[in-house]
Amino acid sequence: MSDPGPVTAIVHAGGAHVLPLLGRVEELLREVAAGHGPVLAEHAGSTIAAGGKRLRPLLVILAAGGEPDGDGLVRAAAAVELVHSATLVHDDVLDLAPLRRGRPTVFATAGRAAATQTGDLLFARAFALLARNDSPEQVRALSDAGSALARGELLQRSDAWDATISLERYLRRCELKTARLFEACCILGALEGGAGSAEALREFGRRIGLAFQILDDVLDVAGPPEKTGKHRGTDLLDGTVTLPFILARERDPDLGAIDPRAIATPAAAEAICDRIAATGALDEARAAALEHVAAAKAVIPDGLAERERAALVLVADGVVARYS
Amino acid sequence: MSDPGPVTAIVHAGGAHVLPLLGRVEELLREVAAGHGPVLAEHAGSTIAAGGKRLRPLLVILAAGGEPDGDGLVRAAAAVELVHSATLVHDDVLDLAPLRRGRPTVFATAGRAAATQTGDLLFARAFALLARNDSPEQVRALSDAGSALARGELLQRSDAWDATISLERYLRRCELKTARLFEACCILGALEGGAGSAEALREFGRRIGLAFQILDDVLDVAGPPEKTGKHRGTDLLDGTVTLPFILARERDPDLGAIDPRAIATPAAAEAICDRIAATGALDEARAAALEHVAAAKAVIPDGLAERERAALVLVADGVVARYS
Repeated sequence: MSDPGPVTAIVHAGGAHVLPLLGRVEELLREVAAGHGPVLAEHAGSTIAAGGKRLRPLLVILAAGGEPDGDGLVRAAAAVELVHSATLVHDDVLDLAPLRRGRPTVFATAGRAAATQTGDLLFARAFALLARNDSPEQVRALSDAGSALARGELLQRSDAWDATISLERYLRRCELKTARLFEACCILGALEGGAGSAEALREFGRRIGLAFQILDDVLDVAGPPEKTGKHRGTDLLDGTVTLPFILARERDPDLGAIDPRAIATPAAAEAICDRIAATGALDEARAAALEHVAAAKAVIPDGLAERERAALVLVADGVVARYS
Repeated sequence: MSDPGPVTAIVHAGGAHVLPLLGRVEELLREVAAGHGPVLAEHAGSTIAAGGKRLRPLLVILAAGGEPDGDGLVRAAAAVELVHSATLVHDDVLDLAPLRRGRPTVFATAGRAAATQTGDLLFARAFALLARNDSPEQVRALSDAGSALARGELLQRSDAWDATISLERYLRRCELKTARLFEACCILGALEGGAGSAEALREFGRRIGLAFQILDDVLDVAGPPEKTGKHRGTDLLDGTVTLPFILARERDPDLGAIDPRAIATPAAAEAICDRIAATGALDEARAAALEHVAAAKAVIPDGLAERERAALVLVADGVVARYS
């Protein structure tokens, strides 16, 4: 998903109604950014305009199936994106990140306080928007995902610099910080559309969320920097131990003995990345991600039309395409 | 409300059902803190245990009137307190505050990142809890209040260090950062109970919220420190220009010419407080707050029983009692 190609293919496969719905989501996001005070307009406007691939709104739309009338669906899709944006804004504050998607972050342009409150405001607007759908189940799904995001980040930070964290704990973190919001996309779509089983769609979302996070973690080690836009090993420099390292330390016990705090420079981090790659752990991690992708495709519900089914297969494949 | 006396009187006046309901709110808050991961349990547990006066949950309960069965009401009351707590946790991060209510803040014990995420999590749990009431109106009321809180803080920070801000802009900030959540308490109570007019109760909440904030701002200038627990003039030191200063600069034009950034020490801030007091602006600000209290009492709906009406009068008076 690093280039627009796969998303375009997904939108095309999903049918003629998908692109107009995505356009309405954009419009609604702009309305939210513009309608709640000048400070939000300035900061959230740029955050929202910076965009991204809108993968999550797209999932909401595809999971709904059919050609729903749309107002509720558009609100649900926008609400998910607002929660996602709120999280990014807060993460950038915590990471002191100057840039995201090649643009200055809210943190960089407006400072810590304005960025923290911009995130809070985006979060609150997400629920205000979703409440209009008159579906407590939707609110519950999104607020549970919001809780999970925060718990996942908390877990990541409490596990930071620990080279011995278990595979289980790593996977738990992926569930919380990534998979749950993908699940919520599918549940919201299913609740608005009703064409496919909500449980099967939830599992689809969970699986592609896990694959997405695992491949993200592989990319951090594998690079190449000219594609990822960052040095290899940035996670390690932040103290974040991920699947490639966990698998590699089984094969190269000296790796397990490393104190992550001792990895102090990009060059040192890249050297560790090379050692991880040398163990074959990257292939093993990729294989784990591909298993999740395959499992995701296998649960796409029959209740959906062929068109949505094909588009969801492309979504699952797109998670891998980021990487090829 | 600085001592437990007035709250005890309010609880007593409200009837025998109020105290058990408040107890159930406490229990639910403890459940939420304990049930979402060890990090939240540690940090939110201490935040929630540190408590405060539970004025907002109490307002929700009183605004409901009668003796409602309670599960929905207890959830609504707890949800409001969770949003309030989330805001406090984030404010402490932004203010780098070591203590709140005499206890170390989450920021102080766990750091910036954990505190930011703890706030996010409390916020998300508030909506998850409230969604169980199956009332989109309640979710909307609380998310609108959450947006207002963030907008109010944004406004305060964008107006910081500006000695010329208008009265209008100050009042707008009070509406957003304080009054809206009090309004939401009353609306939630009215929606759960249905005994009193939601619009009248909303106005009650708004008025006592404004009075609460104005008197808070008066206390910051008037002290005494042995009662407020802080130096006089801490708002000025933070660059926050409030009603006493705005009124005083009309009477003492030299004050209006001051650059707040030049007020660099507690002693300098106290000297400005003395000058503000000398103009009589504190009495004028108090009078404005008392007008809001009187207006609040005047709108208490007839639909409520005598008991709740009496308790709400005490709530309104309690805002002033903090100060005497």
